[in-house]
Amino acid sequence: MLDKFFAPKAVTVVGASREEGKVGHSLIKNLTGHGFKGPVYPVNPKAADIMGLKCFPDIASLPDGVDLAVIAIPAKLVPSAIEECGRKGIGAAIVISAGFKEVGEKGKELEQQLFNASMASGVRILGPNCLGLISTQCNLDASFAAHYPEKGDIAVLSQSGALCTAILDWAVRNHIGFSKLISIGNKVDIDEEGLIEALSDDPDTRVIVGYLEDITNGPHFMRTAERVTKKKPIILIKAGTTDAGSKAASSHTGSIAGARMAYQCAFRRSGVLQAPSLEALFDYAQIFSYQPLLKDRKIAVLTNAGGPGIMAADAVENIGLQFAEISEAAKDKLRKFLPAAANVANPIDILGDAPAEVYGKALNIILDEEGVDGIVVLLTPQAMIDVEEAARQIVAACRGRTKPVAASFIGAERVSNGIEILQKNRIPHYPTPERAVEALGMLGEYAKWLERPRRIIRRFAVNTTKVDRVIRFSHKRRQMNIGEQESKEILAAYGFTVPGDRLARNSDEAVSAASAIGYPVVMKVVSPDIIHKSDAGGVRVNLTGPSQVRDAYELMMMRIKEKEPNARVHGVLMQEMVTEGREIIVGMTRDPQFGPMLMFGLGGIYVEVLRDVSFQLAPITSEEALEMLFGTKTYKLLQGVRGEKSVDMQLVAECIQRISQLAMDFPMIEEMDINPLKISAEGGRAVAVDARIRIGAINGQL
Amino acid sequence: MLDKFFAPKAVTVVGASREEGKVGHSLIKNLTGHGFKGPVYPVNPKAADIMGLKCFPDIASLPDGVDLAVIAIPAKLVPSAIEECGRKGIGAAIVISAGFKEVGEKGKELEQQLFNASMASGVRILGPNCLGLISTQCNLDASFAAHYPEKGDIAVLSQSGALCTAILDWAVRNHIGFSKLISIGNKVDIDEEGLIEALSDDPDTRVIVGYLEDITNGPHFMRTAERVTKKKPIILIKAGTTDAGSKAASSHTGSIAGARMAYQCAFRRSGVLQAPSLEALFDYAQIFSYQPLLKDRKIAVLTNAGGPGIMAADAVENIGLQFAEISEAAKDKLRKFLPAAANVANPIDILGDAPAEVYGKALNIILDEEGVDGIVVLLTPQAMIDVEEAARQIVAACRGRTKPVAASFIGAERVSNGIEILQKNRIPHYPTPERAVEALGMLGEYAKWLERPRRIIRRFAVNTTKVDRVIRFSHKRRQMNIGEQESKEILAAYGFTVPGDRLARNSDEAVSAASAIGYPVVMKVVSPDIIHKSDAGGVRVNLTGPSQVRDAYELMMMRIKEKEPNARVHGVLMQEMVTEGREIIVGMTRDPQFGPMLMFGLGGIYVEVLRDVSFQLAPITSEEALEMLFGTKTYKLLQGVRGEKSVDMQLVAECIQRISQLAMDFPMIEEMDINPLKISAEGGRAVAVDARIRIGAINGQL
Repeated sequence: MLDKFFAPKAVTVVGASREEGKVGHSLIKNLTGHGFKGPVYPVNPKAADIMGLKCFPDIASLPDGVDLAVIAIPAKLVPSAIEECGRKGIGAAIVISAGFKEVGEKGKELEQQLFNASMASGVRILGPNCLGLISTQCNLDASFAAHYPEKGDIAVLSQSGALCTAILDWAVRNHIGFSKLISIGNKVDIDEEGLIEALSDDPDTRVIVGYLEDITNGPHFMRTAERVTKKKPIILIKAGTTDAGSKAASSHTGSIAGARMAYQCAFRRSGVLQAPSLEALFDYAQIFSYQPLLKDRKIAVLTNAGGPGIMAADAVENIGLQFAEISEAAKDKLRKFLPAAANVANPIDILGDAPAEVYGKALNIILDEEGVDGIVVLLTPQAMIDVEEAARQIVAACRGRTKPVAASFIGAERVSNGIEILQKNRIPHYPTPERAVEALGMLGEYAKWLERPRRIIRRFAVNTTKVDRVIRFSHKRRQMNIGEQESKEILAAYGFTVPGDRLARNSDEAVSAASAIGYPVVMKVVSPDIIHKSDAGGVRVNLTGPSQVRDAYELMMMRIKEKEPNARVHGVLMQEMVTEGREIIVGMTRDPQFGPMLMFGLGGIYVEVLRDVSFQLAPITSEEALEMLFGTKTYKLLQGVRGEKSVDMQLVAECIQRISQLAMDFPMIEEMDINPLKISAEGGRAVAVDARIRIGAINGQL
Repeated sequence: MLDKFFAPKAVTVVGASREEGKVGHSLIKNLTGHGFKGPVYPVNPKAADIMGLKCFPDIASLPDGVDLAVIAIPAKLVPSAIEECGRKGIGAAIVISAGFKEVGEKGKELEQQLFNASMASGVRILGPNCLGLISTQCNLDASFAAHYPEKGDIAVLSQSGALCTAILDWAVRNHIGFSKLISIGNKVDIDEEGLIEALSDDPDTRVIVGYLEDITNGPHFMRTAERVTKKKPIILIKAGTTDAGSKAASSHTGSIAGARMAYQCAFRRSGVLQAPSLEALFDYAQIFSYQPLLKDRKIAVLTNAGGPGIMAADAVENIGLQFAEISEAAKDKLRKFLPAAANVANPIDILGDAPAEVYGKALNIILDEEGVDGIVVLLTPQAMIDVEEAARQIVAACRGRTKPVAASFIGAERVSNGIEILQKNRIPHYPTPERAVEALGMLGEYAKWLERPRRIIRRFAVNTTKVDRVIRFSHKRRQMNIGEQESKEILAAYGFTVPGDRLARNSDEAVSAASAIGYPVVMKVVSPDIIHKSDAGGVRVNLTGPSQVRDAYELMMMRIKEKEPNARVHGVLMQEMVTEGREIIVGMTRDPQFGPMLMFGLGGIYVEVLRDVSFQLAPITSEEALEMLFGTKTYKLLQGVRGEKSVDMQLVAECIQRISQLAMDFPMIEEMDINPLKISAEGGRAVAVDARIRIGAINGQL
């Protein structure tokens, strides 16, 4: 798809330079320095030749057949250069030049011109303001980076060019091979979505990793990522996930970083693995590149020292993996050649004076164990051991196996050659046991993703017409916070049970409404100006008789007049008091980037302080809705404590799915929550006791 | 204190060997190989000389004046060798030999003999089963390690000898200097407590770090650590904090690892900083060794690339530090030499083409800023920069400053020389921005510890005689779970309010008790055999009249007969129903290692499922009790939500302090909790609605 970028036939450098140290010079040097087979044409009106290559005065005078231009000229000249490329039939351009939206208003305008030029000419653009691109499959270095990586199957994309240089610098030293390294810059045309799509079909790429500060189009990216992660893993750092970080990010690229939670939900939904740091990104990348997936959770640890074995065991439990049981048969085999003091249970401790070949023998036995899914091999450089031979033994034992192995040789001086042997033979190495275990854990995460069931979004029979009418009526009156009664009408139209209620405009009406509903009752003020009714003294519960109702009404009116003298009060809502059931909250907030984000958690007054909530993006499947329940401690409350019966979890999941459907059907709903939603154990009733819905623009009209 | 170990005058190696590769040979090589000034005497009955040193046939024939013996002979010969040392006046011995408690019952016996020999002879022992000791101040290498570290001010102790070899291997490569490296082995005599005590007075040691699997004596260790951490930081890894890890630990050393929470509490109370991994341990050690403390939380980031700056900003917020505001005056100064596109707000981005000297200029300005407490300096190896010169500039700017600086030069190949310049000049370097920020954070943690107020344990006037009588009465009857009524008597004697109650043995008595107490009432079964009364159907609340009481009584008796047919039932407790107040739990569990661990959290049925609880060890100060409140979300509930009044936090803290006092006064109380403890906002009442106390042995008698 992006073949002209990844495997061009002939390349031109527009802005090539004779002067050492200039970007236009580095580009020529890099393009010709790593074995790229096609011709490289420098364009520079002032030079006859550069580094022995004949120079062309402009794009028009280039020979035919050039399919990629690398552009490093002043920003203001770039749009017309793109147009020239179009006229010359050059379909792809990497714009190295900076000076676009990252430098303010002027730059933004120029970037708009660049976009227009790309659209008009049909020339696809990577950048501007980027380091360029490396594609090792055809020995192409179309960047001004100082290093060139080994061939490998990891593709790297980065929204920070500087980070690309750091990553390269590090990869070269550690023999980490790349298939591609792509600096995405300001993303005027090609963005992360287009790149993962293209890399999905790249036979040289086994794992895609990236550093992103923002995502251009949330829903598009998710759809593409979900498709790609079915074929190969995508691991991303999303920087700017905190207030401080996102402030730093926006001063840097001009893009506003999305909310951390929404990104987490989007990544989880689309199978993207999230790395917490640059170190973790490549820790994970290596194991995906080198090793098979982790089928299940059972981990064995092989070590020549107790301490690191304990640290690995702690890590296994901390990240939710399991410690494998070693079979008696395997223990017998191990005992045959291990000293009596050795530990043949997991962690298998072959002791400090074990010679190198014991690593091979023991590892073969553990790899044969059915009850072991993955293995961490640890080594400390104790007196006698031949570290390099141990590495070779490990490599040999792992050859042709289908279980993942991660190693940690702890130290630096004496272990470095051994580490190099491991790395060159595709056994991923980590400086600590903890990082080895975490990397194995990611293999398991991804394996789970691949096995997830097909997503089926259930559609409930609902009354959309009713909801549409209620919403439009509120919108017409500019009432963006839909009243409680109308909110409940909307929910009732989507299949929720709401308590019986009646509007009362004075104390007499309140008393007769109460006796019609049946005691005990709840009284709530009705006012378009009061959103937090409790805070304003506008809620009274458990009123058990006429005189209580009358008193409550008069007291409420008096207090509200004091606290909210300007509020328009339409009366009170008299409501059935729902006494039975456990209180939960189900809600939705529309994320500007990824759309409706559903929320489930402990309801009532606890929601704000205990924050025991979980999130997922809509639309949601039944399985995902249940996952939302499992993700909270509230789940255990719903199961029942101290002899209480469990509530019907499917019913709770259904409530979440109905809210999901409502959010998808009505994009003008910005935010809603039902709190509390009372779930009774007996009879399976879910009653929306209180609800809030806020709407936004309809067809762009506020 | 341990001077004979740290700076001996003359050393003997008992079990010295001529044979290359043997431990007894390595010891001689190491002792003579690093410039140790005193004489080294090999003891070996079969050799005349070893490596040119005259050999002695036994300890008795050694010259006088030897003060340290390093012993590497078969385990069974070690106890008598220690006795010989005693006779010869050698006061200190490092026992390298393995084959003691780590190999099972036989070895345990031998270790007991070794202990006896040490006690009888007065010879202090490090080990057995250890790698030995390195003390760089006198160039002493009394270990069989393959490496010798540079001089430095970090003292390392490790319960894993293998880890010592790995740490050395790593330190040598990374130029990390040590004052001492101590392998503590099986700790037959000298343990972690004695070592930190000795290192506290060691002028060559600035920071103490260690790897521990267990602690010999919890309370002693805490007392010593609290004293030492007032002088210098102690940073520890406690391995075996998970089930899997502690299982691995006990198969390894025979010691049972203490509970994770108790260790956390003990470390916090005594000012010990806990490291989550080996990497973190030395990340922290370096910054403490090289840099001044962080006075407050405000961090500035200096970078030549946006991406890493964002990652640092995320990390600053994630660990609870603050992003510093840069003053307008400083911004003006920065603008004078930075290009227009540079960012002069925090993170200060000098851009990728900044030459090295800009690092120096910018850093000087930021270091001068009053609103900046600590600085993270980031560098990516972009095209033009002279990395080594940048490192030198950073070193120069930091000279003589009193604010901590941590650096991260991201990459490997091109940055390695720069990193070496930083490290050699005591600017700590980290491979990622996140790790640099975390290390700075630890400096702040420790600074806070140093500034904590003096601990004052308040003593309340209580009735200990009453409590003593109740406990002894229960103990005599072998009733280890003290009944609810008696538990409340104990609490009342310690100043808690308990609801009025009466015992009733039939329904008539229940009705008359209820009317005496006043409706509504609670009814609870009284049985020494029923601990979880709710589960057995033995609790009824909110009984509002005589007929309800009668029905409830009969139903309860019927149900209990069904569910617990063998339970002895003494009747029911009729109790005032406390309707007002928020429910919390206050409790105590006695940790076998560290003593009474206090617990505070959300009460009622929520305690088990929401687990919103915090812990501290008794005895507790008023400030620490308040910290326990702040550590929970329950705190916000107690402050009041939706217009509720706040409860009196001092009152809650006082309840915790009273439980603390009770736990300290009565060591036979194994466990207790008040749940719920109802705290009312008005009137400041704290009522112990339900309580459980479990006792254990009294003076060793169960």
